[in-house]
Amino acid sequence: MDWGTNLWDQNDVIDKHTQAGLDLLERYIKFVKERTEIEQNYAKQLRNMTKRYSKRGSKEEQECKFSNHASFQEILNELGDYAGQRELIAENMTANISDKLTKYLQDLKQERKTHLSDVKKAQQNLESSFKHLESIKKRFAKEWAEADKATQQADKLESDNNNSKIDVDKAKNHALARMRTAEECRNSYAAELQKYNKEQNHFYYTEIPQIFNKLQDMDERRIRQLAEGYCQFSHIEKNVLPIISKCLEGIAAAGTKIDEKKDSKLLIEQYKSGFERPADVEFEDYSQGVKPSNSESGLNPLKGRKHKIFKKHKITHAEKHMVLFMFSMI
Amino acid sequence: MDWGTNLWDQNDVIDKHTQAGLDLLERYIKFVKERTEIEQNYAKQLRNMTKRYSKRGSKEEQECKFSNHASFQEILNELGDYAGQRELIAENMTANISDKLTKYLQDLKQERKTHLSDVKKAQQNLESSFKHLESIKKRFAKEWAEADKATQQADKLESDNNNSKIDVDKAKNHALARMRTAEECRNSYAAELQKYNKEQNHFYYTEIPQIFNKLQDMDERRIRQLAEGYCQFSHIEKNVLPIISKCLEGIAAAGTKIDEKKDSKLLIEQYKSGFERPADVEFEDYSQGVKPSNSESGLNPLKGRKHKIFKKHKITHAEKHMVLFMFSMI
Repeated sequence: MDWGTNLWDQNDVIDKHTQAGLDLLERYIKFVKERTEIEQNYAKQLRNMTKRYSKRGSKEEQECKFSNHASFQEILNELGDYAGQRELIAENMTANISDKLTKYLQDLKQERKTHLSDVKKAQQNLESSFKHLESIKKRFAKEWAEADKATQQADKLESDNNNSKIDVDKAKNHALARMRTAEECRNSYAAELQKYNKEQNHFYYTEIPQIFNKLQDMDERRIRQLAEGYCQFSHIEKNVLPIISKCLEGIAAAGTKIDEKKDSKLLIEQYKSGFERPADVEFEDYSQGVKPSNSESGLNPLKGRKHKIFKKHKITHAEKHMVLFMFSMI
Repeated sequence: MDWGTNLWDQNDVIDKHTQAGLDLLERYIKFVKERTEIEQNYAKQLRNMTKRYSKRGSKEEQECKFSNHASFQEILNELGDYAGQRELIAENMTANISDKLTKYLQDLKQERKTHLSDVKKAQQNLESSFKHLESIKKRFAKEWAEADKATQQADKLESDNNNSKIDVDKAKNHALARMRTAEECRNSYAAELQKYNKEQNHFYYTEIPQIFNKLQDMDERRIRQLAEGYCQFSHIEKNVLPIISKCLEGIAAAGTKIDEKKDSKLLIEQYKSGFERPADVEFEDYSQGVKPSNSESGLNPLKGRKHKIFKKHKITHAEKHMVLFMFSMI
């Protein structure tokens, strides 16, 4: 089923149809570019957010020893990778769809223009040949009418005995000459007609069908490229899905491995002073000669820190271990 | 490993640590809300884009009979569904993470406030008891000193023989009375000390450890909820991945099923006129008495349409079939 044979008289239809095809290709390119922008914007927003939440000072570094803090940081890292995959989608859509099809569209536009211009040229050639044939036909008609008239005049002169033989012969010769010219015109017309019909045949059976088939081939190539572009639109995203899945698994893993008991224990390890709880306050027996204490001495940590029940131990890690060691010696 | 036993003297640390825990929870809620907004925005952009490209008039309806046009529409539909899944992610993150954790955070804030206020109350009670003990101790010391002084004065009066026995007895009685008072104060101090030590013991070994353990339990509940929120962040998206995969498969299928040969054939079916190509132009033999034609009649479609090689067939579908039928009869 080819356009050349079946749509030989549908130049306008083919013109419009191939234009609509290129319009669709152009529309699809625009669509993919918009999708790419949306994807880039999405990735950028995700990336900025993860950066903002990852921003950490010494305080956050300290907290990140706790699993529930550390896992949040891991989630941010995974989401950063996730954003990277969305960026990859955008990049690959640009490279493998938009850029490729844009180049292809330019070529097709040029090719279509050439084919349609070839149709126009062939039309003009045939029209011009037809006009030429018409003029030659008209000349034959005119010459034949003249020759016919000259023959009638010669016949009329001959039938009138008042005319001299010389005059009659002259008229006859004139009519003969005109008839010869008319015959030449007739032959020329016949030759030109044969030539024109050959040309017309070539136009309708070879030239136009060939160009229309080229346009059909071009349109089918366009469709195949477009179909490939449609498939790419899916494949590019499908290709990153395994990595996106891994990011999501990483996030779930970060959530799963959180150990609240370990976090509680870590706080103890970091801040346990190792001090014993205050002993009983001793009886100060003034009746046995004890002088009233100034309340600043004594074992009781409450003493002297009237409004502080809990000590603020500003001891180093090394000191803490020394204290713990000393206790273990008792 | 419990905070009550190991961090009994680390009230500030527990205060700060539980606050940092709630801060992290709050930060995570904010993070999820931002992600939700990004996701909603992404879905909205995709949806708007698909709507814009789906907008079709009668012209597009007509074109959609061609597989390469129809498949683009299918891709738009699939991408619309895809956007719906992204919206679902946003909705589920709001319902299953942000909203839940926000409610939970309020409860935890209240709970922590209560525990810390209980610590403060216990501290204040113990401090007030200690002050009371101090004042009783001071009174004992003062009374004892007075009694001691009175005894010394009585001894001094007695050793001086110039003093009357009445005066000496009076001083001795006075000293005895003071000593009795001092003894009472001593007993009262001893009782108060015992009471205080019992209270102090309760404070350090029961009251504070219990509250600190409640704070630990609270912090561990917070961590478990947060960990669940982390996992949800992954699961909510993982749950829609199969449908997203289906959308992508739908897009690929739309691309794959495009048939360029069928599209070419469809154009023929829609626009084939069924007319035969023009026959040869006939010889008009004026020498055989043919009158010059006015070029408007004849079988040749070129005639009378001097500048139109291709007919613009304005025929209906029915007419087309009738013509085709007539041709088939020949």
